[in-house]
Amino acid sequence: MSSKVSAKKILEEVGAEAGDVIKIVKPNITYKGILLDRPETFDKNYITLKLDNGYNIGIDISDAKIELIEKSTKSEIKFEGLDIKEDPNLPFISIISTGGTISSIIDYRTGAVHPRFTANDLLNAYPELLDEANIKCKEILNILSENMDPKYWEKIARAIYKEIKNGVDGIVVTHGTDTMHYTAAALAFMIRTPIPIILTGAQRSSDRPSTDARLNLISSVVAAKSDIAEVAVCMHATPHDRECYLHRGVKVRKMHTSRRDAFLSINDLPLAKIKDNKVEIINNNYIKRDTMEPKLNNKLEPKVALIKTYPGMNAEIIDFYVENNYQGIVIEGTGLGHCAESLIPSIKRAKDAGIPVVMTSQCINGRINMNVYSTGRKLLKAGVIPAQDMLPEVALVKLMWVLGQTKDFEEVSKMMTKNLVGEINNKSSLIYFPGGYHGLEKDRS
Amino acid sequence: MSSKVSAKKILEEVGAEAGDVIKIVKPNITYKGILLDRPETFDKNYITLKLDNGYNIGIDISDAKIELIEKSTKSEIKFEGLDIKEDPNLPFISIISTGGTISSIIDYRTGAVHPRFTANDLLNAYPELLDEANIKCKEILNILSENMDPKYWEKIARAIYKEIKNGVDGIVVTHGTDTMHYTAAALAFMIRTPIPIILTGAQRSSDRPSTDARLNLISSVVAAKSDIAEVAVCMHATPHDRECYLHRGVKVRKMHTSRRDAFLSINDLPLAKIKDNKVEIINNNYIKRDTMEPKLNNKLEPKVALIKTYPGMNAEIIDFYVENNYQGIVIEGTGLGHCAESLIPSIKRAKDAGIPVVMTSQCINGRINMNVYSTGRKLLKAGVIPAQDMLPEVALVKLMWVLGQTKDFEEVSKMMTKNLVGEINNKSSLIYFPGGYHGLEKDRS
Repeated sequence: MSSKVSAKKILEEVGAEAGDVIKIVKPNITYKGILLDRPETFDKNYITLKLDNGYNIGIDISDAKIELIEKSTKSEIKFEGLDIKEDPNLPFISIISTGGTISSIIDYRTGAVHPRFTANDLLNAYPELLDEANIKCKEILNILSENMDPKYWEKIARAIYKEIKNGVDGIVVTHGTDTMHYTAAALAFMIRTPIPIILTGAQRSSDRPSTDARLNLISSVVAAKSDIAEVAVCMHATPHDRECYLHRGVKVRKMHTSRRDAFLSINDLPLAKIKDNKVEIINNNYIKRDTMEPKLNNKLEPKVALIKTYPGMNAEIIDFYVENNYQGIVIEGTGLGHCAESLIPSIKRAKDAGIPVVMTSQCINGRINMNVYSTGRKLLKAGVIPAQDMLPEVALVKLMWVLGQTKDFEEVSKMMTKNLVGEINNKSSLIYFPGGYHGLEKDRS
Repeated sequence: MSSKVSAKKILEEVGAEAGDVIKIVKPNITYKGILLDRPETFDKNYITLKLDNGYNIGIDISDAKIELIEKSTKSEIKFEGLDIKEDPNLPFISIISTGGTISSIIDYRTGAVHPRFTANDLLNAYPELLDEANIKCKEILNILSENMDPKYWEKIARAIYKEIKNGVDGIVVTHGTDTMHYTAAALAFMIRTPIPIILTGAQRSSDRPSTDARLNLISSVVAAKSDIAEVAVCMHATPHDRECYLHRGVKVRKMHTSRRDAFLSINDLPLAKIKDNKVEIINNNYIKRDTMEPKLNNKLEPKVALIKTYPGMNAEIIDFYVENNYQGIVIEGTGLGHCAESLIPSIKRAKDAGIPVVMTSQCINGRINMNVYSTGRKLLKAGVIPAQDMLPEVALVKLMWVLGQTKDFEEVSKMMTKNLVGEINNKSSLIYFPGGYHGLEKDRS
């Protein structure tokens, strides 16, 4: 077959469409699988096949013959219901599902991923969870987390609080990974909890053989049984399917687009490692089970802006937010908490209009210190509130929450600079920062 | 002395002001040094002293007696001029200074840091540079880099190009660290170079004993003599004063507010390590000296916006930029390159108005892939240009540069998705990402 003939044309000739089962016969090898919808590769004569083992493979079909084996039929994945009996010797854990990749399956017609699994489906898929706890599942949302919104945080917080009051021993929230760290921070400010609240997700959907959902979910259930009564994120610790880290919800960030170990503790150590269904404490500085009386305070002011500064940024964007009645602004500045001096008059106008302006750093790691350089001092004089070692995302969520409690500028300023739930660490440590080693250096001391 | 008496009052009583030399007599120890201006510590009864060895120390003066030794006199630091002779056996390196901490000294009256050292001052401070090369210094700016602006990039590029045409063997640019990675990216797009162009700076000012300026500067001169004819950033590789990494200018980011090893290569390996004034190549994939004909193309379109998305973000901010005649928009989305679906209509309107919208990820590490999830596919359909594994900051600078060359949408889209100067890496490697190890794990494989 000539390489001038496009994959599109070849597929048309045999009548094969995305979703169909096809056979590809090459000189030395034959493949059978479901044709995925990847038209962007067609002009390079590549097609993508979903093999029986679940993996996708790209195949050059310049020298191949293609046979249509079976036209696609729309199929629903259905698990058999399990007959679950309560074991009074095991703790009671609630799994609340909100959507995301962990609740998703691949649509083999389009090759794209859609949310569909509920928490109940996950329980059916991983019945070994029932060896760890009595598990009750509840679906309260089914969205991809890029569509997460402050009003949903309020809803999730209410659902969690209800479960706490119901007397469960721990809660697992399944969530998309894109904005899981924002939700974790929001829940940490909204809920005072006597039990663990563990958020988890997956970087590969639950119906893939390579999914990280199983280990993340079972580790989260183990963490939810533990003594760590905080809002925490439980995700893979390494690229391997071996162990998870438990990260404090206000000190964690998604730091890689696709890796299973994408979540890192920032300016803090992970709380614990979960390995072989056991909790190994890393960071002894945590709130213990049954220390806090449960309390829900889920009121937020959603009209808060996050502005990342950059060379050449025009101050008009700050004026825009002030004119449009935003109630607070978080700036993601540079270095120790700076921005171009040309922005300072607009920042001062915001402050004079009663709008708190909070400074964080786009360096992500490390601490704001606005006393070192002249720019920082000018910003402090203009009334900017330094966010210390808070992540920009956490400062944003905290400002929404603080403004939900009070609009008094002095009170907001005091609350923003005070550690409330572990979001500000007064001490730093060299090992908080992975550094530039990239595995090249052994000596990290 | 009672702990109820404030430090402010005690200092007033003895007539001591910031900048004065004072003596502090405590029961078991006596200190002498310059009083720094840190009023924020006064109500805790702490004052900060600059000791003769150059270090700052915080001292509790509740139980101390204070004596005023000497009132401050405004002093200018001046280095003796060196009588520099040309050595024809050594390469010729130009150092271009633009300001920043490396060019700064502490104002002991206020405790703040101001830019003042020129490249010539640095040469006077570190005459050992002359063992490495014949060095010519040129000051073209003296600003803190938070005030860096695209129009300054054009100016720096012109100055560099002039030195290339003058026939020097390499160029070092001293720069503030806050936005050094933005400038490095801008220069990489603007200048085709047959010689190394090395940016460096300091996290501690040059008059401090703890300064990183000396090692960064000498390592940069060594790198400027090397075979690596790219725009690169040379900064400490570890927190120690031992070695530097050379990072490709379009693949580097300031990842810590204060550490000396704050700069990391992202989605790439460092080009080299500079240790004991020697270059050890790490990444063989670099452009060699004298491969390229020099060319300057420093035209930029500065009206480009960078928008970081977050839960609850209102689409009106995109409309604002479109209405205000911005010529391009870079979105720092979540995960693989997503944002809330509620933003898509505004993104589509921007695209329909001929404004290219480029998608990057706030995860920083990893690659955009907008084919996996339904949101990504919808964004692609709306005309969003995926920035692959480009850093958001680099995508912003590249879009400014590309729009300086053409306003044709298809041409912009083609240039943005094509690797021009190393800003897009088609292959990824596990070791690009330091991961969540924090020194806790030995096995990185």
